[in-house]
Amino acid sequence: MERIDASELHDSVTDPVLTSMTLLNEIAGRYPDAVSFAAGRPYEGYYDTHDLSRYLGTFENHLREDLRLGTEEITRTFFQYGRTKGFIHELIARHLEIDEGITTDAESVLVTTGCQEAMVLVMRALCKDSRDVILTSLPSYVGFLGAARLVGMPVIGVREGTTGIDVEDLVRRIRTARAQGLRPRACYVVPDFANPSGATLTSADRKRLLEAASQEDILLLEDNPYSMFRLTGPRLPTLKALDRDNRVVYLGSFAKTAFAGARLGYVVADQPVVHGTGSSSRLVDELAKLKSMLTLNTSTVAQAAIGGFLLENGCSTEKASAREAAVYRANLGHVLNGLAERFGEGGGPDGRVTWNTPDGGMFTVVTVPFRADEVMLEYSASRFGVLWTPMRYFYGGDGGLQQLRLSYSVLSRDQIETGLDRLAALVEDRG
Amino acid sequence: MERIDASELHDSVTDPVLTSMTLLNEIAGRYPDAVSFAAGRPYEGYYDTHDLSRYLGTFENHLREDLRLGTEEITRTFFQYGRTKGFIHELIARHLEIDEGITTDAESVLVTTGCQEAMVLVMRALCKDSRDVILTSLPSYVGFLGAARLVGMPVIGVREGTTGIDVEDLVRRIRTARAQGLRPRACYVVPDFANPSGATLTSADRKRLLEAASQEDILLLEDNPYSMFRLTGPRLPTLKALDRDNRVVYLGSFAKTAFAGARLGYVVADQPVVHGTGSSSRLVDELAKLKSMLTLNTSTVAQAAIGGFLLENGCSTEKASAREAAVYRANLGHVLNGLAERFGEGGGPDGRVTWNTPDGGMFTVVTVPFRADEVMLEYSASRFGVLWTPMRYFYGGDGGLQQLRLSYSVLSRDQIETGLDRLAALVEDRG
Repeated sequence: MERIDASELHDSVTDPVLTSMTLLNEIAGRYPDAVSFAAGRPYEGYYDTHDLSRYLGTFENHLREDLRLGTEEITRTFFQYGRTKGFIHELIARHLEIDEGITTDAESVLVTTGCQEAMVLVMRALCKDSRDVILTSLPSYVGFLGAARLVGMPVIGVREGTTGIDVEDLVRRIRTARAQGLRPRACYVVPDFANPSGATLTSADRKRLLEAASQEDILLLEDNPYSMFRLTGPRLPTLKALDRDNRVVYLGSFAKTAFAGARLGYVVADQPVVHGTGSSSRLVDELAKLKSMLTLNTSTVAQAAIGGFLLENGCSTEKASAREAAVYRANLGHVLNGLAERFGEGGGPDGRVTWNTPDGGMFTVVTVPFRADEVMLEYSASRFGVLWTPMRYFYGGDGGLQQLRLSYSVLSRDQIETGLDRLAALVEDRG
Repeated sequence: MERIDASELHDSVTDPVLTSMTLLNEIAGRYPDAVSFAAGRPYEGYYDTHDLSRYLGTFENHLREDLRLGTEEITRTFFQYGRTKGFIHELIARHLEIDEGITTDAESVLVTTGCQEAMVLVMRALCKDSRDVILTSLPSYVGFLGAARLVGMPVIGVREGTTGIDVEDLVRRIRTARAQGLRPRACYVVPDFANPSGATLTSADRKRLLEAASQEDILLLEDNPYSMFRLTGPRLPTLKALDRDNRVVYLGSFAKTAFAGARLGYVVADQPVVHGTGSSSRLVDELAKLKSMLTLNTSTVAQAAIGGFLLENGCSTEKASAREAAVYRANLGHVLNGLAERFGEGGGPDGRVTWNTPDGGMFTVVTVPFRADEVMLEYSASRFGVLWTPMRYFYGGDGGLQQLRLSYSVLSRDQIETGLDRLAALVEDRG
């Protein structure tokens, strides 16, 4: 056939956010021997393929012994089309109670094909027409920005400080948007060790954010993939655990605590919905209708694998991922110490290289005295053998031009030291 | 919080197609003892949960022995984020060659979270703005209609005859749409034993459809879940196998040949795409960009399970599902004979009940002398203990008012006989 012109396809295929990520992966692929601070993958040293079959067996035993299902029902659970909302919702509700202090009815849980599908579903539901907009602090998670583009929901950026979203700026931007005839529906927020900034909201700001959501009548989409990876001290409560006005739609992931390949996430959406007929439902059930037209139901094998994983760990992902958490803590320490050794405490005498000091998570942001774009990344990889992620993409293409994100979740201490030496050589060369 | 008004959510949550399916499932759930001609599920008598772990092991051996991957790479394949386009694309390409006579480069295959995600991706790519429309013969698959609603792509209905889509009417409607300023981008078609009508395109019509697509410059989205379940005689070639002008985007499913719970499908999209920069790609790569923002990649456990299934069957799903195919053939015979016994050959002396005679597949359509809607379904279930699917939903809510779909894929011969007795009693009561 005639060639299809890319300009005749949906805008998201030519969107800089989406195309840049493809480009970054392509660059990374050409330098397999470079030390990569680019990959946000979980640590993989403790994975064992034997675990998978055992997880399936554990879940099967659970169906047989705890839930008293017969062979026919068990077979159906594993092989057939299933409940749109999924079948490990009870285990997820137990995990939320144990690890997050969130008490929720299992019927408010929708199991999804990774947290990514959950974001798409929530935005698809909330974006009725071109007036509906969503807010997020910038820099923001590229998966969130991409999901918004896919659904065609405009994103309004909010200022981010060292401790996450600036609540006053959020309120200001909601009001400005309303004055322009727009309908701000929700604000996306990662309260703990955000990707990419590493920022964490203070307890006080969590309360102020919830108050602002009530006062301005918007929802909060809380995304929580990293909270168990805190460097020291007790974890802060999730927004959902503090929520008294049912403002929080909670997005959950097992990518960093169990394994990313499963593509298993969920959303808790217990907000009441009233219909023209007078009947009422919960937001979760409206999301399930959309899911039934997007992926029908979440893969049964993936659900059974994560179900077995939860059962073997008493439904505590904090317990299950304790070894990985120790790796991330140690690596964050190595990166922060390594930066200080090479560029001086607080950025060195000339203050040209600075970085933030996250309380946990998998990411640190470094500000450098040169433009950190894909051209520089290619130069860094080919000349110095070190990969990182330009921060620009997390601003939706506008901002963070002299910043790069370092991820250290899959690296050894030696790799971190070598990588930072190479980064220092790049800075020396370009600075 | 205040209740959310359903009218402030995306239209698809209040769409009659989506809400009706929920309602039908709800009615079915209240009559567990009724004979159900409603469920379109695959036959489940040959499933065994032990197969799943064995499939995973078979796939692991394939990685180790055929592809020579080391333990670290194997672990990464099973547990990590993976290639957006999936890792069983080579096996799928081999299956297409063996079972369908389709020769394709494995790089043109995108593995998806079931065929449903593939439909969403293709429509998302093709729907750039409100002028883009898609065509399908009506009645059409409800999953396709739902995916179109989710993406917000208007559907133009085309007349369907006893042998599927009316190609002349398709051409007429494309031209009418163009004259109205719309951009018809593609036509969705299930050439073999369509759901719900059971209709099969003749060989001549397959060629005419391909010619019409070239002449009118549209794509064909070929969906092929049922072609191996032919009653007698050789299978007809797929559109993709006949395609000389690269008009066909092929949608594949393993739901009926392996198992539906995996949520594993794929799309073959080898059409060239040209970009403003002068570079070129294939449509499959543009779809992959969208997938990276929808589900990232298809579940690794689901891919490994289907990969193992393919390997154990020499990549032939026809061979693998031979036992199920025999069940469907026998059941179609029982249903057609049973209808003739109860309502007379060709619809009985008064001609009030008629039905079509598909050449295979899982569905038959019966025309009855009363309104076959959800009120009647509730009456049928509660008074006569028999469930079926109103055809109305497959027309997008408009048409098929006196028709019902019978599905017989999970029933025994006894259940079919009992169910048809009950259907005859309903006809007697309402006729």
